[in-house]
Amino acid sequence: MIEVVFLGTGSALPTKERMLPSIAINYNGETILFDCGEGTQFQMSNFGIKPFKIKNIFISHLHGDHFFGLPGLLSTMNLFKRTEEINIFGPEGIKNFLLECFKITNMTKRYDINIIEIPDSFEGGILFENENYFIQSIPLEHSIFDLGFRFQEKNKPGHYNLEKAKKFNLPIGPLIGELKKGNSVFYNNQKINPEDVLDEPIKGKSITIITDTKFSENAIKLAKDTDLLIHEATFEESLIDKAKEMNHSTTIDAAQTALLSNSQKLIITHISARNEDLDKLVNECKKIFINSHYAYDSLRIIL
Amino acid sequence: MIEVVFLGTGSALPTKERMLPSIAINYNGETILFDCGEGTQFQMSNFGIKPFKIKNIFISHLHGDHFFGLPGLLSTMNLFKRTEEINIFGPEGIKNFLLECFKITNMTKRYDINIIEIPDSFEGGILFENENYFIQSIPLEHSIFDLGFRFQEKNKPGHYNLEKAKKFNLPIGPLIGELKKGNSVFYNNQKINPEDVLDEPIKGKSITIITDTKFSENAIKLAKDTDLLIHEATFEESLIDKAKEMNHSTTIDAAQTALLSNSQKLIITHISARNEDLDKLVNECKKIFINSHYAYDSLRIIL
Repeated sequence: MIEVVFLGTGSALPTKERMLPSIAINYNGETILFDCGEGTQFQMSNFGIKPFKIKNIFISHLHGDHFFGLPGLLSTMNLFKRTEEINIFGPEGIKNFLLECFKITNMTKRYDINIIEIPDSFEGGILFENENYFIQSIPLEHSIFDLGFRFQEKNKPGHYNLEKAKKFNLPIGPLIGELKKGNSVFYNNQKINPEDVLDEPIKGKSITIITDTKFSENAIKLAKDTDLLIHEATFEESLIDKAKEMNHSTTIDAAQTALLSNSQKLIITHISARNEDLDKLVNECKKIFINSHYAYDSLRIIL
Repeated sequence: MIEVVFLGTGSALPTKERMLPSIAINYNGETILFDCGEGTQFQMSNFGIKPFKIKNIFISHLHGDHFFGLPGLLSTMNLFKRTEEINIFGPEGIKNFLLECFKITNMTKRYDINIIEIPDSFEGGILFENENYFIQSIPLEHSIFDLGFRFQEKNKPGHYNLEKAKKFNLPIGPLIGELKKGNSVFYNNQKINPEDVLDEPIKGKSITIITDTKFSENAIKLAKDTDLLIHEATFEESLIDKAKEMNHSTTIDAAQTALLSNSQKLIITHISARNEDLDKLVNECKKIFINSHYAYDSLRIIL
């Protein structure tokens, strides 16, 4: 089960309803954090996200609303005596900033904080991978260097198919276990491959997070066939000129990206304090991409 | 009227009930901010404190819980197009930290941010003064360099005393106005001084803020005869050894400081997440200093 929790869905100016940007993905007992605006640690506490479960944090870009919550979160985990290391991925500059924070607060770190800077020359690729998932990233088009992220669960071997397996007459036991894990086995002097007895592999689910950017071909590329596209929509359709000037997206840009990438579902976020009528925003999206929804703080989506 | 608003009354670990340290003093149309933990800008919004009214910010020490809200607050004022300059007073290191924040977020400042660093060698004195009030400061005794602050309203000329003024036979008008302002005037070839026609000067009110420190003689000195002493009490009486080890105060330390400084009223703050029974804490104080109270987020005190 993959769970997405929206911790903060506002844009640069926080409101009582919408805190600053941050999204958590809970997967396989681990939490992956995307952006960490001021107050993210409070929202985590409000919505039951445990800081200790975070192993990887990804920061899209170095505008304060997307990462000023990082020093506080890291300090709190230190005070709570975290010992497990953590990885922080972000644009160049984040390392100096965090080291400055640790230095002037005289922080004696109880756990390793690995800061991995993505250079401005980065053209896209995999930032992190383990046996269950990987995080792909690509630069977007904002006023400063900015990254989109895709959480991609790996494919899993298909279910054991009794019908297909019948002819091999396999005994119940470890051989079937090996096949289910995707390994070939020998039985009765015959090599049996996983595909001989298993259904089609179960396709891994994916979530693509695009914030902040103007309409971007790279976003479409990153989101290709994704199950859930989370896309910023700081501006309504009528403010397209303002959106372009500020290097942000409109509802139409978000919906176009969902359509052209063949995404399954769109959730718009980075909602401006200006917007009170959220249905209006979503209806603008729906003209282009019907499965459109809006994010709100505390929204949980299960994939 | 002087109004104190407690924005955050927790200690290093924020809870749902107590946010990180910050206190606002509203005086004469201006807000003075003391410490600025993460989330202070949200608390200001929750409790109706306008960021634009802040002219001076004082940071006691460079532990993250006391100043990690500063970059976000300064950014938000910039996004809201503040143009009026602001002064930030704090220990050495704060300037580099803030400049690093401005640099990596590529912040184009719309207003002047004057950062005044107080060197570790500072032995006490006045940090800021205008015609209505001054801010006095003195080093405390914490694990790192740490400052106590005293807001001191200046004395005002006494009320015009008709009885005393009778013999001068002054006409109603600008001469009386000058005398009320504290200036001498000439009338009927006679010099009239303010004290000839005014009551005793009206004593300015004061608020002393002591956080974080172990029991400190300097705190007593700074709080001398203060109207309101706000003192940290991170530990209950029984945890005195822990308090000493951590360079923090117990309830007893706070109450002793109130007593020895001849303060009028004590409010304890920097309450640990450990403490649920606030009455117990206050009762410990009351054994020594009867006019003791505890702070909570949103508490407003009018002097």
